[in-house]
Amino acid sequence: MLKKVAILGVGLIGGSLALALKQSGGCEHIVGFDLVADQLKRGVELGVVDSYCLNASEAVSDADMVVLTVPMGAMEEVFAQIADHLLPDAVVTDAGSSKASVVAAAKRVFGDVPGYFVPGHPIAGREKSGVEAALAGLFVDHKVILTPLENTAPDAISKVSAMWEQAGAKVQTLGVEQHDLVLAATSHLPHVLAFSLVDTLAETDYVEEIFQFAAGGFRDFSRIASSDPVMWRDICLENKSAILNALEDFQDNLNGVRKLIETSDGEGLWKMFSHAKTIRDSNVMKHTTRAE
Amino acid sequence: MLKKVAILGVGLIGGSLALALKQSGGCEHIVGFDLVADQLKRGVELGVVDSYCLNASEAVSDADMVVLTVPMGAMEEVFAQIADHLLPDAVVTDAGSSKASVVAAAKRVFGDVPGYFVPGHPIAGREKSGVEAALAGLFVDHKVILTPLENTAPDAISKVSAMWEQAGAKVQTLGVEQHDLVLAATSHLPHVLAFSLVDTLAETDYVEEIFQFAAGGFRDFSRIASSDPVMWRDICLENKSAILNALEDFQDNLNGVRKLIETSDGEGLWKMFSHAKTIRDSNVMKHTTRAE
Repeated sequence: MLKKVAILGVGLIGGSLALALKQSGGCEHIVGFDLVADQLKRGVELGVVDSYCLNASEAVSDADMVVLTVPMGAMEEVFAQIADHLLPDAVVTDAGSSKASVVAAAKRVFGDVPGYFVPGHPIAGREKSGVEAALAGLFVDHKVILTPLENTAPDAISKVSAMWEQAGAKVQTLGVEQHDLVLAATSHLPHVLAFSLVDTLAETDYVEEIFQFAAGGFRDFSRIASSDPVMWRDICLENKSAILNALEDFQDNLNGVRKLIETSDGEGLWKMFSHAKTIRDSNVMKHTTRAE
Repeated sequence: MLKKVAILGVGLIGGSLALALKQSGGCEHIVGFDLVADQLKRGVELGVVDSYCLNASEAVSDADMVVLTVPMGAMEEVFAQIADHLLPDAVVTDAGSSKASVVAAAKRVFGDVPGYFVPGHPIAGREKSGVEAALAGLFVDHKVILTPLENTAPDAISKVSAMWEQAGAKVQTLGVEQHDLVLAATSHLPHVLAFSLVDTLAETDYVEEIFQFAAGGFRDFSRIASSDPVMWRDICLENKSAILNALEDFQDNLNGVRKLIETSDGEGLWKMFSHAKTIRDSNVMKHTTRAE
């Protein structure tokens, strides 16, 4: 069992992990740090964390597990704040949505990526953000991807895996680069498209009618456009090259579809739509779990 | 109360309307016609329709309400089959997803669009298609848009409105062109994007990982890519110009987002994402009803 877990960033993800560990008896004490002091006070009031510190160095000073759940853009700053204050046997992990940029930030701060740092990414979220949106069950039956490096300590990987399993998650590993490519395609690109679609529609002359007559399909499709703009700005900046690659592939494909419509190529449209339907139906059937 | 309703096209939409009218006592008899004979037999077995005819002219010969729920591409053919066999006081409506093309098809067959024809479009659906997917409650609290023309008979509009209200729907009217623009933006374009995204991902080297690690956001976003390829091919062909307009606007917007990512313009990304989130949050709040 973990003794003291330091949650650096008490928002939706950090707060949900804290709640899950507290409610399952996965640790003795949880201390929170956040760049926004109000979040911390609210976190203690809501029983999400046991105590809080107003600086990260103090929060990690006697913690055996340190979890960075700050926004991607703040990772490097927080690494720098804690670097000289960690216990000798402390394990550090993060929950950033792209991994190469976090690994690079750790490298800049620590000189080399420390063996006790396990890059990680829980595949879970809500449109709501902040500590008030935290849910103890957020990670239940959801995947957490760890992207350990060659020099990552096996013991550190085990401890981080055990922590996420305690929160109900299923832990899997991927390479750093592979993670960033896969997430760019399945998560980052769809978010960019949803934001862009809603922004496009907002500029039309009939925005009122659009939302008035929108069916369930549009609501589902655009749901992720209600996500946190700061988080998604950071992800676009941090996973830039993988997102641009995926976006370019998508734009090429969409140009192809546009030509099919322009030339009224019914057979070509039917083939493409059928292919997409087959791929989605077969893969969603294969991978959908109860909670998803 | 309607005496005899002829449902021309006993699939998801026609079957669901038939079930809703039967279960609510909205008509005395429902006769089905379909281009696929198997659907008709199954429709009678399942109690969706009371009887069926293997040709449309016979089905409408003693019906006071005729509903065309065949695929968009078959509307003109079915108009031609029934034109000389309608009762003098029969009312005709349809459920096609684009309206200008159905009006044009009626004009070609009848010479002028008859006053007893009320173009309509129920905003409801499922990914599943065919009579076995029919649900009596499919239209409950969903909108049905009617797009009457200048010469459409007020009495015909009233009868079609009453029929949909009997099925639980809320009836509203729009102009033909306005309907096609709004639906291109809120339904047709999102479907094209979802099909194109899944097709793009299917071509990558890591399609297996993509679906394995896809989160709920992707599943929601891509759900509409599991829709019926024939129906969506027809919609792309029938509402071509409105879809191409919406697609062009979207491509311009997406090029703008791409430039923001390429130039690491964090402030520009944040502004765009915030704008989209604000628009979606405020409008979805305003228009979401219980059933949607």
